[in-house]
Amino acid sequence: MARDPKYDPLFEPIQLGPKTMKNRFYQTPQCNGAGQDLPGSQAGHRHMKAEGGWGAICTELCSISPETDLTPHRLGTIWDQGDVINYRHFNDGLHKHGALGGIELTHSGPHSNNWFTRAVARGPSAYQSNAEQQSYCAPMYDEDIDDVIRLHVEAAKRAVDAGFDIVYHYVADSMLVLQFLSPFYNKRTDQYGGSFENRARFSLRLLEETKKAVGDNCAIACRFSVDALLGADSIEKHEDGMRYLERVDKEGLVDLWDIKLGAYIEWGEDAAPSRFQQVNHERGFVEGIKGVVTKPVLMVGHMTSPDDMLENIEKGYCDIVGGTRASIADPFLPKKVDEGRLDDIRECIGCNMCVSRFEVGSMLVCSQNATSMEEYRRGWHPEKFEKTKEACSVLVVGAGPAGLECARVLGERGYDVHLREAEPELGGHLRDVLKYPGLSEWGRVTTYRETQLAKLKNVEVHRGTGRMTADDILEYGADKVVLAVGSRWDPNGLSGATGRPIPGADASLPQFATPDQVMAGKNIGQRVLVLDGEGFVHAIGMAEMMADQGKDVTILSQSHIVAAYLERTRETANLQRMMHEKGIHERPMHWVESFVLNGDEVMADIFYVYRDGYKRFQKPSPDGGLPRRVGNEVETKAFDSVILCTSRWSNSELYEELLGRKDEWAQNEIAAIYRAGDCYAPRLLPDAMFDGHRIAREFESENPQRPQAMIRERQIWGQETFPKLGDREVNG
Amino acid sequence: MARDPKYDPLFEPIQLGPKTMKNRFYQTPQCNGAGQDLPGSQAGHRHMKAEGGWGAICTELCSISPETDLTPHRLGTIWDQGDVINYRHFNDGLHKHGALGGIELTHSGPHSNNWFTRAVARGPSAYQSNAEQQSYCAPMYDEDIDDVIRLHVEAAKRAVDAGFDIVYHYVADSMLVLQFLSPFYNKRTDQYGGSFENRARFSLRLLEETKKAVGDNCAIACRFSVDALLGADSIEKHEDGMRYLERVDKEGLVDLWDIKLGAYIEWGEDAAPSRFQQVNHERGFVEGIKGVVTKPVLMVGHMTSPDDMLENIEKGYCDIVGGTRASIADPFLPKKVDEGRLDDIRECIGCNMCVSRFEVGSMLVCSQNATSMEEYRRGWHPEKFEKTKEACSVLVVGAGPAGLECARVLGERGYDVHLREAEPELGGHLRDVLKYPGLSEWGRVTTYRETQLAKLKNVEVHRGTGRMTADDILEYGADKVVLAVGSRWDPNGLSGATGRPIPGADASLPQFATPDQVMAGKNIGQRVLVLDGEGFVHAIGMAEMMADQGKDVTILSQSHIVAAYLERTRETANLQRMMHEKGIHERPMHWVESFVLNGDEVMADIFYVYRDGYKRFQKPSPDGGLPRRVGNEVETKAFDSVILCTSRWSNSELYEELLGRKDEWAQNEIAAIYRAGDCYAPRLLPDAMFDGHRIAREFESENPQRPQAMIRERQIWGQETFPKLGDREVNG
Ligand SMILES: Cc1cc2nc3c(=O)[nH]c(=O)nc-3n(C[C@H](O)[C@H](O)[C@H](O)COP(=O)(O)O)c2cc1C
Ligand SMILES: Cc1cc2nc3c(=O)[nH]c(=O)nc-3n(C[C@H](O)[C@H](O)[C@H](O)COP(=O)(O)O)c2cc1C
Ligand SMILES: Nc1ncnc2c1ncn2[C@@H]1O[C@H](COP(=O)(O)OP(=O)(O)O)[C@@H](O)[C@H]1O
Ligand SMILES: Nc1ncnc2c1ncn2[C@@H]1O[C@H](COP(=O)(O)OP(=O)(O)O)[C@@H](O)[C@H]1O
Ligand code: SF4
Ligand code: SF4
Repeated sequence: MARDPKYDPLFEPIQLGPKTMKNRFYQTPQCNGAGQDLPGSQAGHRHMKAEGGWGAICTELCSISPETDLTPHRLGTIWDQGDVINYRHFNDGLHKHGALGGIELTHSGPHSNNWFTRAVARGPSAYQSNAEQQSYCAPMYDEDIDDVIRLHVEAAKRAVDAGFDIVYHYVADSMLVLQFLSPFYNKRTDQYGGSFENRARFSLRLLEETKKAVGDNCAIACRFSVDALLGADSIEKHEDGMRYLERVDKEGLVDLWDIKLGAYIEWGEDAAPSRFQQVNHERGFVEGIKGVVTKPVLMVGHMTSPDDMLENIEKGYCDIVGGTRASIADPFLPKKVDEGRLDDIRECIGCNMCVSRFEVGSMLVCSQNATSMEEYRRGWHPEKFEKTKEACSVLVVGAGPAGLECARVLGERGYDVHLREAEPELGGHLRDVLKYPGLSEWGRVTTYRETQLAKLKNVEVHRGTGRMTADDILEYGADKVVLAVGSRWDPNGLSGATGRPIPGADASLPQFATPDQVMAGKNIGQRVLVLDGEGFVHAIGMAEMMADQGKDVTILSQSHIVAAYLERTRETANLQRMMHEKGIHERPMHWVESFVLNGDEVMADIFYVYRDGYKRFQKPSPDGGLPRRVGNEVETKAFDSVILCTSRWSNSELYEELLGRKDEWAQNEIAAIYRAGDCYAPRLLPDAMFDGHRIAREFESENPQRPQAMIRERQIWGQETFPKLGDREVNG
Repeated sequence: MARDPKYDPLFEPIQLGPKTMKNRFYQTPQCNGAGQDLPGSQAGHRHMKAEGGWGAICTELCSISPETDLTPHRLGTIWDQGDVINYRHFNDGLHKHGALGGIELTHSGPHSNNWFTRAVARGPSAYQSNAEQQSYCAPMYDEDIDDVIRLHVEAAKRAVDAGFDIVYHYVADSMLVLQFLSPFYNKRTDQYGGSFENRARFSLRLLEETKKAVGDNCAIACRFSVDALLGADSIEKHEDGMRYLERVDKEGLVDLWDIKLGAYIEWGEDAAPSRFQQVNHERGFVEGIKGVVTKPVLMVGHMTSPDDMLENIEKGYCDIVGGTRASIADPFLPKKVDEGRLDDIRECIGCNMCVSRFEVGSMLVCSQNATSMEEYRRGWHPEKFEKTKEACSVLVVGAGPAGLECARVLGERGYDVHLREAEPELGGHLRDVLKYPGLSEWGRVTTYRETQLAKLKNVEVHRGTGRMTADDILEYGADKVVLAVGSRWDPNGLSGATGRPIPGADASLPQFATPDQVMAGKNIGQRVLVLDGEGFVHAIGMAEMMADQGKDVTILSQSHIVAAYLERTRETANLQRMMHEKGIHERPMHWVESFVLNGDEVMADIFYVYRDGYKRFQKPSPDGGLPRRVGNEVETKAFDSVILCTSRWSNSELYEELLGRKDEWAQNEIAAIYRAGDCYAPRLLPDAMFDGHRIAREFESENPQRPQAMIRERQIWGQETFPKLGDREVNG
């Protein structure tokens, strides 16, 4: 098929300084968690987007010097020749597909703990980071200003040497240049502080020197937070925001304006979860910028479809569209538009699971794209599937994310697949989750796969089959079986942390409910207690839904914070605000000792998890027991309903029955039975989906239940290091 | 000097299965944060201990398979040939010094999130980890048990191939073998669950197969938590603790009993901060073990001096002493004992800063030993100092940790050093800190350096000089100057998070105090508010001290937890318990909007930091302001005193004055003036001390103020990887 001409504006080339970008699809700076330690994984992820048609693809934050080291996050560095080698590989792969490579040169001031390098970062003034309580910077005197500009310029030269086409001037996310610009950080009284012109001086000097050093060979992009969303505490659009754009644009030093929102402490306002922000949520802040600058303007803001993107260009908000999470979820989005295959696009759901894994210091994952970060180390291509040489029939039981993805990949690989789902609707646990407040986009995980399965001639999807039994499966006639029958909530309040059910908790009683019972319509009273034992979306989703229904809600967690995982998706600040605003009573570090029914109500004995004595005994007591004073205080509270989101069980009974009848497998010509997703072990959405994908990719291996080896990247003793000891100091 | 013969028992060789350990100094398994990614740093740290006389040195937790991956902690792995190469280097260096190498083979069950490998770990039963809310394991069926034993045995074989002398059977810290042993995790009803004998079966089978595979070539050590300190929820000494020891010892499969305490969730009970546990705190739990086993017994428990160690051997508690933190603080402890140089030993202070940096995913640091983890990458030796070729006179101003360490290293390097301290006592801010509840051992940082400085003929220490002025310094006659004049608390409640002082806060008023004013005797009333803006030891120390004086204490933090840094030192659980027990009212996520005096008392307007609206506006309001509903609720509370531990300022005035008079430097023949420690930027103890050390090591570099390049380790594109794609599956 050919491209619908209405999308032509997205495919027009555009000039960025000395470089031409072939179209308007741009991956703004984005961490993937490989940093410079895993150059193959780092580049593999980017090369795929280039192959998929993205016109420009950037690194993540890329530190210019060991004085600014964002450990434990694995980020970019452009410190030395080793980095140049690794980034050359990065850029070579982009250029092969006609894409431009951009590098976001970064100095973070005191937001670097510098835990790894142990250096001290400098900043415009002396201050404690507002992101890292223990981190302070050294104030810059005149010679430091020259020195830090030199560090930037040297980094820019190395970047060009490594083949980058776009070098960033980074005035966003509370990083150093913005720290100079913002009076929140900049308390200088010399020519670099005070008036707007003075606060912008560092930026202008740096731009000028960068332009002089590398401007003939690459474009200079300026990533600018036009509004830090902190009110008067930082850049506001109507004040320094627009002022900076006008002032700097007229110098002609910037070739591309990459506009974003927010600050380092709340960067989830920019990479915003769909729970809080929908498509084009930055538009209101970008409006009018094209009127004051002469150079191309790029914007971002959860655009997931080509229509979202096109609209912004046509309405004159911007010239180029950033689709960062869009490019993770579907590296081939531009190509699919170009080929008129719109319904093949896998749209980002805004779950920020990508962010979460990077945040913890690992590599990103994606709820929509199981191949993300697996391009190099597992050799997976999101759009190419090795045709099986051992075609056979496969029965996939259960159409949650794991079963759907497994059936899809098996289908792509040429297997004869029957996907059978008990319920009339596909989607598994997502059928409920997409009804939680703010999570409707999660439904795209299902709809994308449903569409794809419908296109695969060799896949049959059977809905509403009822729960298949072991007999059904044995007699079905498939050569191989994948169980993807999911998990269920423990009905008695069991949680890993305490290792036991909560006495009195029982979801078969009217006063207790699991989330699926709630969604199935179980009656919930006015005073509701929610137990959050997993820290993921379920408990907080239940709490918000109940509050929205006007109920009095209390939510308990044994962690230091409710919905602890969502700290990693950058949702915590807004979730805390939401709970406060909706009157949800949250009690972290608390749990329930036992429940007692009192007529229709439930009395909960709530305890503080640290109620025991802090002085541990020096000897065990002869008859055992906790070797510290045992606390037994509880607070008894009455509730009408208790929602139990404490821990899950895999639906393993089916497999266990089949395992017990293993001799019947051969009789029924079943060669193997595997488990994918939550029914192997309860997992989070992207992991359950990944599991279905992986098993299908590795379906011919000796034991697809267990993963195949993948490439590891790290220093091997004896291989050369960059730098070596005694090399010219890189940051002195 | 020669060794005092009383220490001879510490130097007697001892047989461990087929291996002979040359003495009784043993570094039990210990992470250093280099894992397998940085083999040079990993090995450099261990080789130094071997050179310093430790008889056996172990790895950290070392994962046997990608199914158990403890990312984001950088730990050991023995998955493939790359690991074998790296560990060969590790062991070669140990063997050169006659030390044995031990490897702690680890499978952690569901405590592995497997964020990096994305595999699912198996466990005896299906359960949610009690350490990681989102992590569940798959239950092991019969074939899984065989398979996991095979994985262990193959790992053991690789370990022996890599030159290890001691292979661990790891039945501690809630890891897999212990999960089988403990009914908390093990809910099996087959021959691996139920009775003690059944629960021990996995351990025994694994031991047997390991012994068979590698027992002729290496010793088998069993690291056993004889008491998990969780009462009936896990192993208790008087129950399964002693039972397991007896039962397994009689099989003759274990060559060394390495006894520890505690569980994974509270491993700070074993690597216990001196705040809560003093020397030999595990003795009461180890007592009697030698009576029931036939093989050598090793114990740990914050032994920092050879006398602590000797006593345990002489009193029959153990045969071998583990001194893990002792070996970080002083890799040369055994050698110093051997050479009769007892007062050269740098004793561990039990601050757990080592733990903290490993915990965040970086490399460990040590408050006593600035060279730890710098042995390879910076080429630093804790006991050897390159003599300077540019000897000159150096004035070091200020004798806190930074000044003391700088003077010491400059002295070792042959400079003519004058260290001048305003106060009559050395130690800087530690003079106060060691008086906080539980922190008396921190004083060792000072006393060690004081002793060392006294031995250096070329160093003069001047106490009680009063604060040197710029004039004093310019006229002093030194060729170079290092300012190490420290930092001070902001007197007005400024914190980085809000970027502003708190209106009304003023430490010059009687109602407010900074920690140093408190320690200097400022009067503190009955109702005390402590503001914790740094999350380190000061605010919590003040709070506890005030509570101990019988005051009503409230402590506020903007973080999700009070004393947030101390989560990383594994102090949080006990600090929470302490606050609860001592009635300290803690309010995380709260801060003060303003203070108003009301007669003698202070009214504080306390606010919740997430009181604003969660729905961000779609456009900036035309006249600015926070783009969300602005919350303004406060709770007004009365206090008699407020202690301000919000943020610090470097004492930079002296440097700034000297900088302003730079022309006078040459006139006074001063070649350079540097700043070390908190007076460059406020830092935590080990970092300030490190800074003094680094500057002294790099004193002849072009600009010692900024660090020299160090070796980096990571994959460089084009270098070989282990494994490669398609290599035999390592965990299938
Ligand atoms: C996983 C992830 C990592 C990111 N890392 C960076 C970064 O290193 N530097 C940066 O300027 N922005 C970073 N961003 C922000 C994106 O560039 C972009 O501004 C944001 O995601 C909004 O665009 P989107 O809605 O199209 O994703 C990151 C976003 C994501 C999702
Ligand atoms: C930084 C650090 C890391 C540790 N890592 C491990 C580990 O990987 N495996 C283990 O069994 N114990 C580990 N431990 C515990 C030590 O082996 C030892 O049992 C504990 O520190 C008590 O001994 P000590 O007081 O002499 O330090 C660690 C301790 C420290 C301080
Ligand atoms: N025996 C069965 N036969 C057919 N479908 C089943 C059976 N048991 C469960 N299912 C379906 O399997 C799906 C499991 O999905 P889900 O719980 O989301 O797991 P996952 O996250 O692993 O994909 C559900 O849609 C459920 O209705
Ligand atoms: N002008 C000065 N002359 C001499 N000593 C000083 C002067 N100013 C501060 N000091 C001393 O410097 C030391 C600084 O120590 P500290 O605050 O612990 O810093 P650090 O942690 O960087 O070592 C204190 O002991 C203080 O008394
Ligand atoms: S993980 Fe979620 S938010 Fe991130 S790219 Fe994928 S679908 Fe979008
Ligand atoms: S950091 Fe502290 S606890 Fe750790 S070894 Fe050093 S002195 Fe001991």
